[in-house]
Amino acid sequence: MNKIVTLIISLTLITSNYVNAQTHPCLTLTKKGIKEIKANLGKTPLYDKSFAEVKKVVDAEILKEIDVPIPKELAGGYSHEVHRKNYNTMEKAGLLYQITGDEKYAKYVKNILHKYADLYPTLGLHPAKNSYSRGKLFWQCLNDANWLVSVAQAYDCVYDYLGKSDRARIEKDLFVPFVNFLSIETPQFFNRIHNHSTWGCAGVGMIGLVMNNEDFVKRALYGTMDQTITADQHDNDGGLIKHPGQEKAGFLAQIDGLFSPDGLYSEGAYYHRYGAYPFLIFAASLQNTKPELKIFQYRDSLLIKSVYSLLDQTTSTGEFYPLNDAQKGMSIYNSSLISAVDIAYHFGKRDPSLLTIAALQNEVVLDESGMAVAKNIKNKIPLPNKSIIYKDGIDGKGGAIGILRSKSDLNLVFKSGTHGMGHGHFDQMSYSFYKNGKEVVQDYGMARFVNIEQKAGGVYLPENNTFAKQTIAHNTLVINQKTQYGGDSDEADKYSPKLNYYNFSNPEVQYISSRDSNAYQGVFQNRTLVLVDSKEFKNPFVLDVFNVNSETENTYDLPLYFMGHLMSISTKVTIPNQMQKLGKSDGYQHIWKEGDAKANEGNTNFSWLGDGVFYTYITATTGSDSILLGRSGASDPNFNLRRDPMFIVRKKTTGPTTFASVLEAHGSYSPVTEKAINSYSDISAVEVLVSNKDYTIIKLKTKENKNWLVALANQNEEKQHAIKVEGKDLSWNGPFKLLKF
Amino acid sequence: MNKIVTLIISLTLITSNYVNAQTHPCLTLTKKGIKEIKANLGKTPLYDKSFAEVKKVVDAEILKEIDVPIPKELAGGYSHEVHRKNYNTMEKAGLLYQITGDEKYAKYVKNILHKYADLYPTLGLHPAKNSYSRGKLFWQCLNDANWLVSVAQAYDCVYDYLGKSDRARIEKDLFVPFVNFLSIETPQFFNRIHNHSTWGCAGVGMIGLVMNNEDFVKRALYGTMDQTITADQHDNDGGLIKHPGQEKAGFLAQIDGLFSPDGLYSEGAYYHRYGAYPFLIFAASLQNTKPELKIFQYRDSLLIKSVYSLLDQTTSTGEFYPLNDAQKGMSIYNSSLISAVDIAYHFGKRDPSLLTIAALQNEVVLDESGMAVAKNIKNKIPLPNKSIIYKDGIDGKGGAIGILRSKSDLNLVFKSGTHGMGHGHFDQMSYSFYKNGKEVVQDYGMARFVNIEQKAGGVYLPENNTFAKQTIAHNTLVINQKTQYGGDSDEADKYSPKLNYYNFSNPEVQYISSRDSNAYQGVFQNRTLVLVDSKEFKNPFVLDVFNVNSETENTYDLPLYFMGHLMSISTKVTIPNQMQKLGKSDGYQHIWKEGDAKANEGNTNFSWLGDGVFYTYITATTGSDSILLGRSGASDPNFNLRRDPMFIVRKKTTGPTTFASVLEAHGSYSPVTEKAINSYSDISAVEVLVSNKDYTIIKLKTKENKNWLVALANQNEEKQHAIKVEGKDLSWNGPFKLLKF
Repeated sequence: MNKIVTLIISLTLITSNYVNAQTHPCLTLTKKGIKEIKANLGKTPLYDKSFAEVKKVVDAEILKEIDVPIPKELAGGYSHEVHRKNYNTMEKAGLLYQITGDEKYAKYVKNILHKYADLYPTLGLHPAKNSYSRGKLFWQCLNDANWLVSVAQAYDCVYDYLGKSDRARIEKDLFVPFVNFLSIETPQFFNRIHNHSTWGCAGVGMIGLVMNNEDFVKRALYGTMDQTITADQHDNDGGLIKHPGQEKAGFLAQIDGLFSPDGLYSEGAYYHRYGAYPFLIFAASLQNTKPELKIFQYRDSLLIKSVYSLLDQTTSTGEFYPLNDAQKGMSIYNSSLISAVDIAYHFGKRDPSLLTIAALQNEVVLDESGMAVAKNIKNKIPLPNKSIIYKDGIDGKGGAIGILRSKSDLNLVFKSGTHGMGHGHFDQMSYSFYKNGKEVVQDYGMARFVNIEQKAGGVYLPENNTFAKQTIAHNTLVINQKTQYGGDSDEADKYSPKLNYYNFSNPEVQYISSRDSNAYQGVFQNRTLVLVDSKEFKNPFVLDVFNVNSETENTYDLPLYFMGHLMSISTKVTIPNQMQKLGKSDGYQHIWKEGDAKANEGNTNFSWLGDGVFYTYITATTGSDSILLGRSGASDPNFNLRRDPMFIVRKKTTGPTTFASVLEAHGSYSPVTEKAINSYSDISAVEVLVSNKDYTIIKLKTKENKNWLVALANQNEEKQHAIKVEGKDLSWNGPFKLLKF
Repeated sequence: MNKIVTLIISLTLITSNYVNAQTHPCLTLTKKGIKEIKANLGKTPLYDKSFAEVKKVVDAEILKEIDVPIPKELAGGYSHEVHRKNYNTMEKAGLLYQITGDEKYAKYVKNILHKYADLYPTLGLHPAKNSYSRGKLFWQCLNDANWLVSVAQAYDCVYDYLGKSDRARIEKDLFVPFVNFLSIETPQFFNRIHNHSTWGCAGVGMIGLVMNNEDFVKRALYGTMDQTITADQHDNDGGLIKHPGQEKAGFLAQIDGLFSPDGLYSEGAYYHRYGAYPFLIFAASLQNTKPELKIFQYRDSLLIKSVYSLLDQTTSTGEFYPLNDAQKGMSIYNSSLISAVDIAYHFGKRDPSLLTIAALQNEVVLDESGMAVAKNIKNKIPLPNKSIIYKDGIDGKGGAIGILRSKSDLNLVFKSGTHGMGHGHFDQMSYSFYKNGKEVVQDYGMARFVNIEQKAGGVYLPENNTFAKQTIAHNTLVINQKTQYGGDSDEADKYSPKLNYYNFSNPEVQYISSRDSNAYQGVFQNRTLVLVDSKEFKNPFVLDVFNVNSETENTYDLPLYFMGHLMSISTKVTIPNQMQKLGKSDGYQHIWKEGDAKANEGNTNFSWLGDGVFYTYITATTGSDSILLGRSGASDPNFNLRRDPMFIVRKKTTGPTTFASVLEAHGSYSPVTEKAINSYSDISAVEVLVSNKDYTIIKLKTKENKNWLVALANQNEEKQHAIKVEGKDLSWNGPFKLLKF
């Protein structure tokens, strides 16, 4: 009887664990895909080039002695980098085995898998204690999950090559405990609505698909429903482990919870790029193994949309705008973008504009999606240089990110969406500005040197919290020298600015407007940005109208992180004999005060030269405003911060206040010809004629004494408006009007 | 009788002024050249491209109303820029008239010449009083001379087109007074051994050739022999007007006095580039009109050699090393280099390696030399990536500039030549270092924004003298925080370091060594630089051995202007709460002290990341040495200086002292892959085993505990040497030996 019971239980387990028997490979490679690849190999230049590059690297690597070191160092250190290289090589060797049939690749994967199966059972947690979820091979589970996503693919490719006993041994000693560790034993890692968990779910799900282990696949899709996580648990970056009200976990919950309906990823493009790979590779694997799930149609084809949102958040040279925690220089050339573009093309609508990106990348992945791109690359059509708005928040009601683009290759990026969770910066209503793919008004990005061991092992540096995340590190208003939401990201995650209106229909005059009353208690903020790139003006420019209102007297600091060498300032600057910090907290302690000045009555002007282009900033000031010139890098014992310049326009007032500024891009300078062309701005004055709860009216004067008005309706925006300005009747429809005066 | 005397005098004048009647054009274009150009036009892509570009610009320009404004502004200002554009357009319109025969170009030149002939007689000196030799059209005679060099060519091209009466009027009202003003009336401008006078002589000589005015040509070739200049007259840059002992003036004296026998130009490549154009264009004109002068063979073909010296002083991306006063970014793409390469090819030995430069420039001048280059461009052969030494001084005994290059595209530039006159920096024995064409250890260059009006009219800024020229702004030893030669350039011009030895025969281990005992009274300095780029070492590196000796106790500061973001320092740095300046004078007042530290007993290490490459500097220190971390930009009320980082190794000692340092280039970092490869240096220690008047022995230890010795003989260099080191006998021949130990 005991025996029978045991047998029944075993049978049940077998049934639940081994339902849809798969052929192998089944994840990103399939029998059909292999056939297609083999048929086109040697005839498809882009694929062949990528194939040759991968083969060269792998061929060199597998000649070396296999090294599976005992885990020891942080990122950048020896053991970390070797394990990283190992999983990359395994994944690629698996692919090469399937494509070439050459057993040396399969043998390599088999041998190294046994080495890992030897090592894994001996491991406790990684000795470095830096992570909220320490891994075993690496210092954090995240990297263990990276390993698993690659190795699941390698295992899939050699599954049939391995004998049954090899498989049984490897699964028992390596994959089963590996999966259980990542999922059941580390619930704080596995059940989040966060990119860490996406990697975890993808790894667990993909090895589950290969092993035909439905339990693993279910954990991946739906989480482990662990109830032990408390409401106040945070990760190393200050992100909440469990969001208030979070009821679901797993891959599908992450698709629901990490994206806006437009496909915008809450943490920003840099993390999206990182999360995109597991989202898409697991989805492709699910599509190939469980087409009935229709994963690419899930949530109105969200995963495909998300690839477009990622591509939209790049400069004309393909670099991501570094919103929130982001290392600058990350771009469409990153491997996860190559995979994302190939998958979106192959599993999406075969959009030929994606082929333009693939052609720039000049590389494809070696599976069927990469072959589809390579075969069709000649059909590529240009990408539109268009402005775009992404509504933020999982319901699309969390404000918006606006990207305004114009014909002079100007990009104006306006953040008024969600905070961005643990990787969010306190920078609501901030903007950054680019010309020709270069930064003109920068977002600092993050204070971290990813994978550089000398810099604290490549992890976030203390200055990321104390400076890079703070409001003063961004181009938005700082009130009483305090950071938005008191620097509390849980609080910041609860609110978003509200999009007032936007209009990109006239490419010569585009505008966007948002408002906020949560970032600072009792203060109402309303910012309208206008990008003008029109033959009516000599030079393109940004008009920035920032209204703020509060019943109490406040100090308002509007910083601008300009990139370039200062050419001139229209007011007398006092420079210090000993340099002081700008303040004691909220990021001000990290800024040296290089100079200060009284603002002019009327306008104060700054001009600088950056990347061969002149820029002039003209801002409406009164004689009681002040100007501060600063540079990051104070209170920085390990020289972790860049030394970047900025200036601040400071107003101390009560009641409604308006910052009105024009930033004009003009002329050029070349050190080869030594010609300074059009080195002065054309707009000579910016004046706030009216600013009340109904209307803000700004006058712009050009050097040739032409006058323009910008009329903004601050409420009832869509209606007909009429107001008397400087003795003349002014009337217009809708929220915005630019007109000669 | 009176009538007869008058007639005789007139005839004498006519005879002396109009000897060799020329056909026109005769300067850079000739009848023969025009024939050659017309025969190949439309069949020579590189020429045709350049022709089309020039034609497009000129065709647009001559449609506009002619504007010959009253001189008013400094460089960058309206009248300055219009006159600059005018002479450029005239020169090119002249060429186009000769090539196309289209009279619209000749008509334009004729009309604008009459306008200038209207204006010129009304002009006094330019209203701006900034120059030691104020011009009439421009704020300085130099620019007037620029104008004349171009306009002489334009006049030459339309000479036959113009009627006799046009010519008579234009010569009487414009060219004759213009020449007399530049030469006789401004002797302090015309008679120098200086690039200003080269422009003056070229302008006067070229218009003289066109007008067949032998008197003008003689002034140009031999100067005006004016005796009114006093010994202490200086120009705006602090350069002496008349050199001690200077007996000659004029173009030939400038060839004698401005170049070393190798063709090195005393002021540096940036000014050479500027002076190269009048040297070569006047020489080409003389060759075409007075071939009997054999100007290109003059002084052992010096003018052709000088083009090679210019090209040799560039990075692998074609930018000049900014020795002395130099604006960074100036390169082989500048128009005077295009002309220089074409002339050196055509009038030199038709060297096919010059065609490689011409192909990069992708542009030729529109005369016969440009056509010769364009016709032969397919014969181009690669340029050697070779190390080179230029002996300095007009007799070749003024020290040397060494440029060490290696296979990893490393360039090490060592200055131990002449001071460089008014544009010289007090930087004897300094070096700068490049990888992949990018600065690793920078020379600051000059504090000036050429032609940018906002920056003091584009002239030298005060900080050029107070910072950029000072010793502390360079990578060389500063003693007792004072500048070399007490900052007196007249004094500095009298001396040079002495080249001890150099050897570039082994491309894997190259070295150069110089000594000096004049820059600081009572202090002997000896620097040996070794560039190692060898398979014997994991990474390439520079070894810097700087011996100094003095009977008195001195403070020795060895600064390093590293380019990049600091990764780590091996000693505890104290950062300031309020930032102080590093000193009060000699450039120290312009450096903020970002941190200081006690040096380690043994070695102190710095590492940084710049342009995607890691660098580590390991320097032998004792516990009583100190380390200062600085940044330029203090005492800079107009924000004229860049904010660039540097560190200083400071030793306070008496007697013989050695700074021994290794600078290793290793690994890479990409923000796209986020991989940090080989981020640690391989050399783990630098030790001074011996340092006395005979020998300096340095030990290098690698991470794998391999030991290397560098043995230097400090006197009797060429002999056999033997010394016992760490109990072992060491012997070698010659001044230098690198060996395993």
